Amino acid sequence: MSRTWNFAAGPAAMPEEVLLQAQAELLEWRDTRASVMEISHRGKAFMALAAEIESDLRTLASIPPHYKVLFLQGGATLQFALLAMNLAMPGQSADYLLSGHWGEKAAREAAPYVEVRIAADARANQYRALPARADWQLDDGAAYVHYTPNETIHGLEFADIPEVGDVPLVADFSSSILSAPLDVTRFGMIYAGAQKNIGPSGLTLLIIREDLLTRATRPMAGIFRYAEHAAHQSMLNTPNTFGWYLAGLTFRWIARHGGLVAMAARNQRKANTLYAAIDDSGGFYRNEVAPRARSRMNVPFFLHDVQLDAHFLREAEQAGLLGLKGHRALGGMRASLYNAMPPEGVDALVAFMQDFRVRHG
Amino acid sequence: MSRTWNFAAGPAAMPEEVLLQAQAELLEWRDTRASVMEISHRGKAFMALAAEIESDLRTLASIPPHYKVLFLQGGATLQFALLAMNLAMPGQSADYLLSGHWGEKAAREAAPYVEVRIAADARANQYRALPARADWQLDDGAAYVHYTPNETIHGLEFADIPEVGDVPLVADFSSSILSAPLDVTRFGMIYAGAQKNIGPSGLTLLIIREDLLTRATRPMAGIFRYAEHAAHQSMLNTPNTFGWYLAGLTFRWIARHGGLVAMAARNQRKANTLYAAIDDSGGFYRNEVAPRARSRMNVPFFLHDVQLDAHFLREAEQAGLLGLKGHRALGGMRASLYNAMPPEGVDALVAFMQDFRVRHG
Repeated sequence: MSRTWNFAAGPAAMPEEVLLQAQAELLEWRDTRASVMEISHRGKAFMALAAEIESDLRTLASIPPHYKVLFLQGGATLQFALLAMNLAMPGQSADYLLSGHWGEKAAREAAPYVEVRIAADARANQYRALPARADWQLDDGAAYVHYTPNETIHGLEFADIPEVGDVPLVADFSSSILSAPLDVTRFGMIYAGAQKNIGPSGLTLLIIREDLLTRATRPMAGIFRYAEHAAHQSMLNTPNTFGWYLAGLTFRWIARHGGLVAMAARNQRKANTLYAAIDDSGGFYRNEVAPRARSRMNVPFFLHDVQLDAHFLREAEQAGLLGLKGHRALGGMRASLYNAMPPEGVDALVAFMQDFRVRHG
Repeated sequence: MSRTWNFAAGPAAMPEEVLLQAQAELLEWRDTRASVMEISHRGKAFMALAAEIESDLRTLASIPPHYKVLFLQGGATLQFALLAMNLAMPGQSADYLLSGHWGEKAAREAAPYVEVRIAADARANQYRALPARADWQLDDGAAYVHYTPNETIHGLEFADIPEVGDVPLVADFSSSILSAPLDVTRFGMIYAGAQKNIGPSGLTLLIIREDLLTRATRPMAGIFRYAEHAAHQSMLNTPNTFGWYLAGLTFRWIARHGGLVAMAARNQRKANTLYAAIDDSGGFYRNEVAPRARSRMNVPFFLHDVQLDAHFLREAEQAGLLGLKGHRALGGMRASLYNAMPPEGVDALVAFMQDFRVRHG
């Protein structure tokens, strides 16, 4: 084995215990005499698994009974459109809080289906800080308020859940879901692509307050309707069964390792370690995000001299530190520190960064 | 190992060689030092894999350069809606040939986006035969003609590709893709959920003639547009990377085992064996589909006495014959004989059926 530290932003590192279990039972799962990939999603064995997984997730994340849990396909990007189609009546407006690339994209994809109001916007400072609360222009009549609790590319995170009154709050939690305890009751809908903190790509988790399923919206295909997916327990059409199964293994891994409280503490320590190494580098490395808005999950950073970027990446890879190249929109580096990244990985990164600085400083 | 014969309709049996390779490299794929599930879809390693897979498929299925190949999410059901949104202008009509459950569903999901004309219809005979060619009412001005070459539930298959003139022919090949050679140039678009002949659920293959990508249609989110997916090589958003990888392993397995010509011969022999056992059972078993319309992939059959159904299923399972319960819409039994089902599995089923008949006849 030469597995190593993988800081990819998504698809991302998965817990090794999860991969080992999936490997051991890949050809024969439980008593089905087949792979979990090979059995009917509507058969007893998979239906029982689906119920277990939902129950495990409800316990892990304290999801109240009046919220439905869905396991869909298409990624968060498909939800950018579907949530507008499902939650807004034609002609209604919705408020968007923009704190980075993904919030912008969510607004753009929703625009054919709802009047998008940019209620707050941190574009002017190039997404180096969250939009100041005093400048938010929320509309009490909005169909919903949408925001992105953690911006994977820009490395910004909301430390608190925005207070938006009675308008349903909708959040794209793709890059921070299950990284810390969360008060689900503050949200109308939470959604997340699985490929960062939950499992492999190709699966999308939705947690939606039941009353929002009954919003009358517009004529559309059944496959676009959240209410249809909920009525069919996420089996309106054939789901991504292997992804669903891996998400289930990941939920159990989180529970075995102390649940969301333990994940939160571990994630905060990992982030603190890396930000300290950046801030204490005498300007050799820099992170440009306002300290209060810094993401615990995605840490973009720059070397003081871009000429060193290629060296850094090559030497990091030789040192077993993978996936550190920054998103093409920003350049530089990015280290993603999702649940599956052990503290030892961050320690190894920090040690490498210090060594690199000594040799190239 | 107690893996056995799995006749499930989908998700369905996968080639054991494919599963063994996936198992062996599940934690470390090629020289990435990570699972194929854990690496960026935009990184060099996965981009190279995606190119290999497309190239392998193009060779295997003789796909000409003026067709785009896409690997999307959402299943065939999502395409039921998207193909209408992408291929028809508002107000245009499209012709649907109905030969079973899935054709009906395709028409229903398209209805909000195109005027659906039922150009041919075998509902009157409860889908026991294909609609007679003389009765088809095709419209030269249709945006497209849609049909379902193989109906998974009703067990009907078109032996030939329908002749529809210059109107683009669109086909849901979910349950028979890559089961025999196919003249792609006869089609405007072919699509297929992967979970029968290609790989696991959660992946959808599209093969679409390039000129159809430029049809001006209607305002919609980018994630709904085939042209956007094509422009981004199926990476408009994060794809189902593990499903894509498994599809690639399956394409190579087909090529190693003689390609589509060999698959076709093997599949025909398997189907002949099972239909002969049914027809020669003196009425103990029956298949109600007109012989010329019988599916090579999905063989529904009924016992002469429904009281025996539960016995049959229980004893079959004890004999290692799984997934034989018929779809709830039809009852009875169904044996799916996709590429991955070896002839030995069909022989075992036929032997069991004969033994069961002797004991219960």
